[in-house]
Amino acid sequence: MISNDIAERILAAVDAQFDAQLERTAELVASPSLRAGEEPAQDLVEQQLRGLGLDVDRWTIDSPELREHPGFGKPTVDYGGMTNVVGTYEPTEDLGKSLILNGHIDVVPEGPEDKWSRSPWDAEIRDGWMYGRGAGDMKAGLIANLFAFDAIRKAGLELTGRVHLQSVVEEECTGNGSLAALLRGYTADAVIISEPEEDALVRANVGVLWFTVRVTGDPTHPREMANGFNAIDAAYEVIEALRGLEEEWNAKKGEHEYFENLDHPINFNFGGIRGGDWPSSVPAWCELRVRVATYPGTTADDAWAEIEECVADAATNSSHRPFEAQLTPDGFYSEGYVLEPGSDAEGLLEETHRAAFSRELTSFTTPGYLDGRVFVNYGNIPTLVYGPVSENIHGFEALRS
Amino acid sequence: MISNDIAERILAAVDAQFDAQLERTAELVASPSLRAGEEPAQDLVEQQLRGLGLDVDRWTIDSPELREHPGFGKPTVDYGGMTNVVGTYEPTEDLGKSLILNGHIDVVPEGPEDKWSRSPWDAEIRDGWMYGRGAGDMKAGLIANLFAFDAIRKAGLELTGRVHLQSVVEEECTGNGSLAALLRGYTADAVIISEPEEDALVRANVGVLWFTVRVTGDPTHPREMANGFNAIDAAYEVIEALRGLEEEWNAKKGEHEYFENLDHPINFNFGGIRGGDWPSSVPAWCELRVRVATYPGTTADDAWAEIEECVADAATNSSHRPFEAQLTPDGFYSEGYVLEPGSDAEGLLEETHRAAFSRELTSFTTPGYLDGRVFVNYGNIPTLVYGPVSENIHGFEALRS
Repeated sequence: MISNDIAERILAAVDAQFDAQLERTAELVASPSLRAGEEPAQDLVEQQLRGLGLDVDRWTIDSPELREHPGFGKPTVDYGGMTNVVGTYEPTEDLGKSLILNGHIDVVPEGPEDKWSRSPWDAEIRDGWMYGRGAGDMKAGLIANLFAFDAIRKAGLELTGRVHLQSVVEEECTGNGSLAALLRGYTADAVIISEPEEDALVRANVGVLWFTVRVTGDPTHPREMANGFNAIDAAYEVIEALRGLEEEWNAKKGEHEYFENLDHPINFNFGGIRGGDWPSSVPAWCELRVRVATYPGTTADDAWAEIEECVADAATNSSHRPFEAQLTPDGFYSEGYVLEPGSDAEGLLEETHRAAFSRELTSFTTPGYLDGRVFVNYGNIPTLVYGPVSENIHGFEALRS
Repeated sequence: MISNDIAERILAAVDAQFDAQLERTAELVASPSLRAGEEPAQDLVEQQLRGLGLDVDRWTIDSPELREHPGFGKPTVDYGGMTNVVGTYEPTEDLGKSLILNGHIDVVPEGPEDKWSRSPWDAEIRDGWMYGRGAGDMKAGLIANLFAFDAIRKAGLELTGRVHLQSVVEEECTGNGSLAALLRGYTADAVIISEPEEDALVRANVGVLWFTVRVTGDPTHPREMANGFNAIDAAYEVIEALRGLEEEWNAKKGEHEYFENLDHPINFNFGGIRGGDWPSSVPAWCELRVRVATYPGTTADDAWAEIEECVADAATNSSHRPFEAQLTPDGFYSEGYVLEPGSDAEGLLEETHRAAFSRELTSFTTPGYLDGRVFVNYGNIPTLVYGPVSENIHGFEALRS
């Protein structure tokens, strides 16, 4: 542990910079880094990293090695102009342990305009909360990484271990950004991902798969509708079948350490639907966008086989008439992870957490995707996903107003 | 009745022109007159009408009078460049009865490409059937109107009554094309609409309403999904509620002459669905495009009030949590019609049908929209919807291959 004196100097340096930290956070929230639109926000991060005097590595994430990796999520956008940014600090004398501070720059879509009382990109602070898409998930954490690093030097201290400050893309859809950073050779003794986890540590985390189900059949004019096929109904049969699989998987929670005490650890989400061409034509096609979760230890391939079987059964045994259902992976294709307790990194976090909050660090299992799986499963690095308080991170501002 | 000799001369003239009739039909099918894209096809019709030596009236359908009419369907496209074409024959001496021969130029969308073994626009003839979107519904009938008119003159006869050959838009979505033609002043002693009705006469016909239901609520991240709202589920609750209303209306068929013996006279169709923005966000919104049918005598306003009540109940009494549901009319807003038996026009059709087919004319009730409602309800003109044999008019070619 560091001495109280040093801790106080660092905390004072954090406080001294806090207004600037909020400003930089707001500036980053104001840059709508939606998928495939992250570059202006990465420019801001790069500028910050250069301002900290770091060596900056910025590269387009695509590579054959990435695409062949078993943890590669299937992209639906062009990776040609999509970059990661990493700022590296090399100590003059390398005596300490190395650390990766990771955050993602991408945000999920802001949703319907009428769910916001003002722009999702204005980063207004009201009653102590910053509002805006991505403020919590996770631009606050990403900027906190940079200011934490800077505060140590502002406190007059010199770091004796290598530090990589990473701003990655694609965390909200494939996890390929962090995977590309690992494959580029960035490793360390520990990783901190400052996701909004309510000042608690993620112990275990589901795998996530994204895919589209396209159901098709042969409809007809409404005047002959009784004999026809309706793709919207067929899509709903697929939803019901997958909900059956979801409950099957939830029923097995007792077999999975860190999941056995959760009410409903496995959540499937039906996040999008599109079908039909014309109000007076029975729809011939309907596409569902689905997100499923899996327990750690279940490979994406194994989960995929079960999903395929479930949907094929629904299509064959339809209560109306059999239909075709085509499944296409189009995003996350990932395995969950467990952070094994007992690492030095975790021990240090316990101590600093206790010092900061005057209470013990708690850990928990989260049913959302995290890039931690990249560093734990493929880098074998203790990875602390731990970060600030947030609310309603994929929701809308209007919920709090 | 005309004499056998004259009938034979006319039939011979029809036969002599039949290859040309098929060619013109194929040419018209090859022009994809999808909604708001009808003008090139209307150019072809205009050229044909001018070739017949008729006075041609071509005008954009929009007018304040049209928009204020109770039978006006709510358009979702710009009417600025959308025209009707009418060719008028005025006899040198006006001794006979006048006639409108009406057909619509617009076709419904062709649907998914993979449901066709070739282009929907190539009008190929195979085993005695012409394939293509709109071949049956209703370019065959539209061209037949022109060639029937021409055959009489080719047979060396002179018509002694006024004839209007109408090619109208918007029959597949609002019925505003025929309504605009009526409002422009075109009336006659009878109307023939040569829709594909299997050589039978339409006695009664439903009204049709189109509308969009937009359901919205407050979703959240999948990790908190149990507390959230899913717009796709809410949309399905609306579907189920409207299906309840559909069955309620069907249960009343005994009160409606010409509908009491049909299995299921009232069909609702859920023709389109769109919802959600992101696979890992619970969808906040979902839009359904709906087509409902009503009995003749039920005004669109009365039907609309019942629909609004049904959907509002579903939204308030949701099995999950209450949601918002906004209804917007966006197409047909029409009342059905009954062709009262006993008109001179129908008597003449009975005779000519018997002569042509050696069997009695049958009449029937159709659960699809027809422009007949314009001329019957608002023009008080006997309107014979009667035309050629077709199959699967809003379906796909692949169904027959």
